[in-house]
Order: sequence, then C-alpha cells, then structure tokens
Amino acid sequence: MRYEEYTIEGRNAVLEAFRSGKTIDKLYVLDGCQDGPVRTIVREAKKQGSLLQFVAKERLDQMSTTGKHQGVIAQAAAYEYADIEDMFALAEQKGEPPFLFLLDEIEDPHNLGAIIRTANLAGAHGVIIPKRRAVGLTATVAKTSAGALNYTPVAKVTNLSKTIEELKNRGLWFVCADMGGEVMYNTNLTGPIGLVIGNEGSGVSRLVKEKCDYITSIPMKGDIDSLNASVAAGVLAYEIVRQRMKG
Amino acid sequence: MRYEEYTIEGRNAVLEAFRSGKTIDKLYVLDGCQDGPVRTIVREAKKQGSLLQFVAKERLDQMSTTGKHQGVIAQAAAYEYADIEDMFALAEQKGEPPFLFLLDEIEDPHNLGAIIRTANLAGAHGVIIPKRRAVGLTATVAKTSAGALNYTPVAKVTNLSKTIEELKNRGLWFVCADMGGEVMYNTNLTGPIGLVIGNEGSGVSRLVKEKCDYITSIPMKGDIDSLNASVAAGVLAYEIVRQRMKG
Repeated sequence: MRYEEYTIEGRNAVLEAFRSGKTIDKLYVLDGCQDGPVRTIVREAKKQGSLLQFVAKERLDQMSTTGKHQGVIAQAAAYEYADIEDMFALAEQKGEPPFLFLLDEIEDPHNLGAIIRTANLAGAHGVIIPKRRAVGLTATVAKTSAGALNYTPVAKVTNLSKTIEELKNRGLWFVCADMGGEVMYNTNLTGPIGLVIGNEGSGVSRLVKEKCDYITSIPMKGDIDSLNASVAAGVLAYEIVRQRMKG
Repeated sequence: MRYEEYTIEGRNAVLEAFRSGKTIDKLYVLDGCQDGPVRTIVREAKKQGSLLQFVAKERLDQMSTTGKHQGVIAQAAAYEYADIEDMFALAEQKGEPPFLFLLDEIEDPHNLGAIIRTANLAGAHGVIIPKRRAVGLTATVAKTSAGALNYTPVAKVTNLSKTIEELKNRGLWFVCADMGGEVMYNTNLTGPIGLVIGNEGSGVSRLVKEKCDYITSIPMKGDIDSLNASVAAGVLAYEIVRQRMKG
C-alpha cells in the first residue's frame, strides 16, 4: 500500500482541499479565530468528519513548513485505499471463505491501527471503514498497525449499511458485537463472515446493527461496561479463528 | 483503590520529584521561560515522557496552591497499590479459582490501562506488575482502564520470578504467551491460573518464562509478527474465560 503524508496550510489551500474532496484527517485551527473564512473551513471539516483541534499560535508556527499558515493547517494522509474486490481476490487466492472486518466509526487512530494489525494476524482478508465520522489511514494508524497496513487491504465506503447489503448478496453473513446478543462461544461464526465493530463510545449504530444477521456478545464478568474497541475486536476475531480451525 | 492527585510546585521540588522517580503526569511551564533550571526540568520531563504544556503566568498563578511556583507546576498522581492477598480474598469471595494477570514490563500506559480493563471484564482477580522497567499507575492508565482500576486490585512486586515461585506454592499454574508454544485452544487453561503477558517489544523475559508451567501461543495467520500487547492479553484472557465457562 503506497503512503504519502502531507500538510496543507493557509486558508485558500485548505478550503480548496476540502472542496475537492481530499481526505483531511485532522484540521488545526488557531484558538479564538472566528472570522468568516475560518468559520467556513471549520464547517467543511465538521461536514466531512475531520478531527478538529484548536491550538495556540506557537503550535501552528511549529507545525508550519511554509510559515504562512494563516491560522489553519490541515493534515492529510494519502494511502491508496483498496477495493473490496481485492479482499475477495485475497480470500480466493488463499482458498478460504471471506472474512472481513467492518468498522462502524472507529475514531481513535491507535484503535484503528491495532484492529488492522489484529485483522492481519487473525487471517482476515480486509478491513472496511466508512468515509465519514471515522479516522482514516493516518501516519499514527500506519505505525500502530505494525506493518499490517502493507498487507491487509483497507477499503473506504460511503455507506456501511449499503455495503453490508451488497456483500450479503455475495454470500457473507454479518455478525455484530453488542450487548444482549448470544454469547459468542455459542454463535456459529464459521463460513463467509463480516465482523462489525462499533464506535468506542456508542457501539454499533442502529442502522448498521439492523443489517446484521447475528448479534453476538463477549461475556462480561466484571464491574465496568465494555472492553477497549481494539481488544473487543481481537477477542471476537479469535473466536472466529477458533471456530474456523475446529471446522 | 484510593487515588490522590497532587501538584508539586517550584523548581527544586519539581526537579527533585523527577530525579527521585516520581510519576509526573503533566508539567506546566511558564510560556517563554528559557533559563537553565527550567530547561533542565523540561529535559527531564521529555526523558520521562510527561505531558508538557507551556502556559501563561495567570494560569500558573491560578493553579498554584503555595503561590510560589517559580514558573513550574508538576501534576503527579498516586494510586494505592493492592496486596496479592486482596486478590486471593476476591477470588474466595466470588467462589472462583484464582485468575491473575502478571505483566512482564509493560511500558505503554495505554496498554496497561487496557489490560486492567480487560482483566476486570474477564473476571480476573488482580493484576501484578513489577516495580522496575514498567509503567506504574499513572493518570493515563487510570483513564484508559475506564474505571476498572477502582475494582481490580493491582499489586507491584520487586521480582516477578520470585512472585511466581510463591504463587505456585499456593496452587497456581502459570501460562505464558509466546511463540512456539502449544496453540491456546489445545492448552488446558482451567483451574487457578496466572497469565503472563510480556513486554511490547521483547515479549516475556527469559527468567520469567523459565518459571512458567506452559507456553501457549495465539495462532498467527498473517504476515506480521505479533499482536498489540493489550489485544494479545484480551485474546488469551477470553480463551481462559471460554474454558472456564465450559468446565
């Protein structure tokens, strides 16, 4: 997977980048800056679901490579995203039923990186992420993936529910991790499968959950609410591995 | 678990705190302050990985309780560590065979926090960490543990190998996660158990590994080397949960 990271500085350049549909992972804005152009840029960032951070002038000056940031610096990362077809090709090449991860709005780049790493080691054939309200393939993600990003295809789709529909037509079953489902050890997780992992705070969104064939649960034997998203993904993925190895 | 957060103010006190090995979570420094002593303190902060923030004088004055901050305020957190006896008591109270995590030099506070979170939800009775070459209970760990630190006892021991010896005499079996062991699905992980998780980079140290009764492996079906330490801990812990639920 080819990768290029770059920053875009200055009001016109940043606004242009948003309007041309570039993936802006993160937008840094001068704290307290409230004028028209900056408000327009912030609005674009929110619309596109970029992470937004208000920082002091010193920080911007430090990050700037041109010295002319005008109060806005956008961080863009260009990884070449894969196609879902690449994932089917990989499964076929290995002679295995497809095993895909679908991440419903994972926000933390460390979680995304760790999940791609897990997907690789659990033998999954790809990871599908949504275009909006989710972290993309940033440098942090690449680093946290420990190299997995070079092997495991990651595709970005506009509408996760629609993608699930399409993949169902190609024979995949979808299982989503949520409370109140059947205990994962008792759920049949073999065959061509899509594992849906939800957002760190709010879990799997209702629309996506409704598309899933099963809801499965990790047994919770403690006092707190939920596992870290990347740990939950690992635990579920390896239950799939166990059932596949047994089968 | 009792938690106390406190600030240390003034150049000598802050420098002394760094040098004595106290965990400083965050250091506030007067913006623009560049003299020798302050530079030394900032260097120590960077060496120890404390968060560093340059702030205005008004902010420091506001935070100060002594009124004599001299341009530096450090924020430290102290958690009360538990005893291993607390863990046995918890297991007995729940009527379960003891299930402990032993972490061999986990360095990343996010990993430690996520592992304590996992230990809680997997129904483990405690987490044992070594005194040296490992992250302690910082504010980041507490935050990442998502509250688990309030329920799951964490003990700090001088020598992990010696602790394993002692716990063996109390009937525990020790299993360590490492490559080349038996696949975890085929290892008997029931009964009173200690799960040993290794360092992020170098795995379980030789001396500790030699004390373990089993070496068990997570099946690796991918192209890269290893899972994230907290994901590996989760996958192994839930294989123990599975075998316990079945048994």
